[in-house]
Amino acid sequence: MALIGVLGGMGPLATVDFMRRVVELTHARCDQEHLPMIVANLAHTPDRRRAILGDDIDPLPALLAGIDLLNRCAVDAIAIPCNTVHHWYPQMRAHSAVPVLHIALASVAALPACIRQAAVLATRGTLVSGFYEAALHARGIDPILPSAAVQRDIDASIDAVKAGEIGTGAARLARALAALKRRGVAVAIMACTEIPIAALPLGDTSMMLIDSTLELARAVVVFAAERGWVRAA
Amino acid sequence: MALIGVLGGMGPLATVDFMRRVVELTHARCDQEHLPMIVANLAHTPDRRRAILGDDIDPLPALLAGIDLLNRCAVDAIAIPCNTVHHWYPQMRAHSAVPVLHIALASVAALPACIRQAAVLATRGTLVSGFYEAALHARGIDPILPSAAVQRDIDASIDAVKAGEIGTGAARLARALAALKRRGVAVAIMACTEIPIAALPLGDTSMMLIDSTLELARAVVVFAAERGWVRAA
Repeated sequence: MALIGVLGGMGPLATVDFMRRVVELTHARCDQEHLPMIVANLAHTPDRRRAILGDDIDPLPALLAGIDLLNRCAVDAIAIPCNTVHHWYPQMRAHSAVPVLHIALASVAALPACIRQAAVLATRGTLVSGFYEAALHARGIDPILPSAAVQRDIDASIDAVKAGEIGTGAARLARALAALKRRGVAVAIMACTEIPIAALPLGDTSMMLIDSTLELARAVVVFAAERGWVRAA
Repeated sequence: MALIGVLGGMGPLATVDFMRRVVELTHARCDQEHLPMIVANLAHTPDRRRAILGDDIDPLPALLAGIDLLNRCAVDAIAIPCNTVHHWYPQMRAHSAVPVLHIALASVAALPACIRQAAVLATRGTLVSGFYEAALHARGIDPILPSAAVQRDIDASIDAVKAGEIGTGAARLARALAALKRRGVAVAIMACTEIPIAALPLGDTSMMLIDSTLELARAVVVFAAERGWVRAA
């Protein structure tokens, strides 16, 4: 039996959203055709954003403990539905006996070939870390980084979702998207797994929004389908 | 750090629904105030309904392996968001070093004191097992069991949700509820964790519906809050 490991809880609602996406993307007629998963919903992991910005506890020991736990559960691959934590991707990958899928590579790969510019909606930690910029540059795409005012709305939207206040999250995200649209942005990556939850109540935003949670879920189902573990929907 | 173990995947969407409920019932302002969980989403577990009815593989070895896995992950309590599997509750409880919450006891406890009759919407396996009848009788409540025609709609609704066909699940459940209403049923327990997912699109059904997924999630958050692990919302 193949098992997918999920290092989750960052945040918990984003992990739930990710699991739902995996279930929906799997073509299964009964329970037994779904993908078995071990989900370590480690909500207590120290704040990744503040750690990258230099003023909080290092989350790496907790992350490696989570990778160890999943490896001990004999998972065959690991997915991590949190973008910011991919700042420590090299260390987690080196620590794991099994592959760790990369959320930013999955998200950037979802951009159509004709795209030359894409805004990155992410935590300040993710932006300072720079792994989205690197992944976009590798495909010849210019990253557009939000202004300070727009970033304040994005930060507030993320915090609101983490606190379960989806309405506030949606309102702050709507304001950020409106400001980006006025700057001529047509394509944006929701490069934080709280943002798709805030985007859901907005409906059509007349902007191409790449959903990093969905793209990671798709990468997991494709990985599993290629190995004959499930059928993709 | 306290950890809740979840023996899930029966079915996978019901496990996602259960996790969402736990997150929503927790009063948390940031990730770190949420409840850490290890979720063993063991979708491959052999069909519980057919095993109780006597014509399929015994799922007990897979269930006990799941209980072992969660105990090895050092969880402090276990919840199982599947009703039918509680047929094997005594064996799972005896096998676990930590408490296993009981979904039927949590659901029956949610019925208001004045209730004298409640319909049980469940798999044929759960009904044959009889643990809901026993829990209701212990509170002096008469269980109302669906007619053969209504049970066919309930079975079809459950199977549709397990296959991801929520619209079909909702339509078959609506027909079952309408038939029960004609019989004068005013209160029903959704005693299968697929049924609340089918009920969601129906909106107000003018029947008191006890949601076993929600009640198990509430029992987990109350259990954790009583021990100071989280605050209940």
